[in-house]
Amino acid sequence: MLIVGELINSSRKAIHENLEKQNIEYLLDIARKQAEAGADYIDINCSTMMDKESKVMKWLVESIQEVIGIPLSIDTPDPLTMEAGLSLARKGQPMVNSITGEEKSYRSVLPIIARYKAKVVALCIDEHGMPENAQDRLRAAKKLVKLLTEAGLPPEDIYLDPVIVPVGTRDNSGIEVLHAIQLIKKDCPGVNLICGLSNVSYGLPNRKVLNRVFMVQTLTMGMDGFYPEPPG
Amino acid sequence: MLIVGELINSSRKAIHENLEKQNIEYLLDIARKQAEAGADYIDINCSTMMDKESKVMKWLVESIQEVIGIPLSIDTPDPLTMEAGLSLARKGQPMVNSITGEEKSYRSVLPIIARYKAKVVALCIDEHGMPENAQDRLRAAKKLVKLLTEAGLPPEDIYLDPVIVPVGTRDNSGIEVLHAIQLIKKDCPGVNLICGLSNVSYGLPNRKVLNRVFMVQTLTMGMDGFYPEPPG
Repeated sequence: MLIVGELINSSRKAIHENLEKQNIEYLLDIARKQAEAGADYIDINCSTMMDKESKVMKWLVESIQEVIGIPLSIDTPDPLTMEAGLSLARKGQPMVNSITGEEKSYRSVLPIIARYKAKVVALCIDEHGMPENAQDRLRAAKKLVKLLTEAGLPPEDIYLDPVIVPVGTRDNSGIEVLHAIQLIKKDCPGVNLICGLSNVSYGLPNRKVLNRVFMVQTLTMGMDGFYPEPPG
Repeated sequence: MLIVGELINSSRKAIHENLEKQNIEYLLDIARKQAEAGADYIDINCSTMMDKESKVMKWLVESIQEVIGIPLSIDTPDPLTMEAGLSLARKGQPMVNSITGEEKSYRSVLPIIARYKAKVVALCIDEHGMPENAQDRLRAAKKLVKLLTEAGLPPEDIYLDPVIVPVGTRDNSGIEVLHAIQLIKKDCPGVNLICGLSNVSYGLPNRKVLNRVFMVQTLTMGMDGFYPEPPG
């Protein structure tokens, strides 16, 4: 099972503030705690830093690698920031988070991902938009696997995210994800699955209980990895 | 989901003692508490009463029906006790617990089950003995469904039990059960599945946690009913 720690994300208020102040100790402490808690990858997202994103990404990648031995997940849609992060990553195989099956999302970054031999998270979204059911997810998954393997990635470096939609917004959304996991495991051999589990309970009470139940359900169907929910 | 309360079983020491003393209030209290806790059926097993089994079964069926409105599960391999219990059952559709696919288990009771139009729990065991893997369970399931439907039972009255083996005794036994549930759901349409969940954790620490996880896993695969674990 692959665990990607996603706490270093500038859309979180405390992270943004400490990035602005260049308070590296605060950020390294979060990276360390995620590694100690069992994360296999530390995700870095500084996209709210806008025109400083690429510079901040380089600073974080270099700083975190000085204290942490596990590989990094470069979390950005921006080709320049992605390349900046990947070019400095030197602890194991880096990961890119994420692309979709929409041409505007994958076209310019596919060659970068292939050149740096990174793992990649690919969201099961295509030109038809957000998936509504298992078949929508399977269609996007097949497109992404074809694109990525043609670009030179081995199946084991591909992590498809079936896109978990809150059950509070559509009551069959959990079942459709479970069905999608089964279909993708059958039709895309060798490829991995990963998901942002806590989306399932967004807006509902007792989120932790629902998250745990859905974690067991997705694992039972074949899920390979998770971005764990942020604490609290 | 169907919940069968199995606490009135004479193999439990306190039940046996109170049956010997004919302390009906103690037994009715347990029946009431199971009904209040959400049981759909109250199971009655007095097989350790030996040559008094049939007489005790009649007394329990009549006594419990005076205070409880939910139907009863007549839990015995003995044809005379089974017929005694079913002939007095008058609260909804009774259930028989259980037969296997071994001829000595089903031959003499099949006509009784059919005559009283009872639901039946059928354990996925055949003349090859205890199932070791998913295919063993599927083979026994198909045999049982054929026998029972030929005897006149509609598929919805059949509850196949895939036979949960402790994961402490064979480490793939949980996965084989999950796979069996999928296969049976596909190959035996309209038939229900039920299981004695807590067997999975027999002999291990933290049984409640493992039981809960396995409950979610079996439900995800299509389980329809449970005998809940006894308290404590």
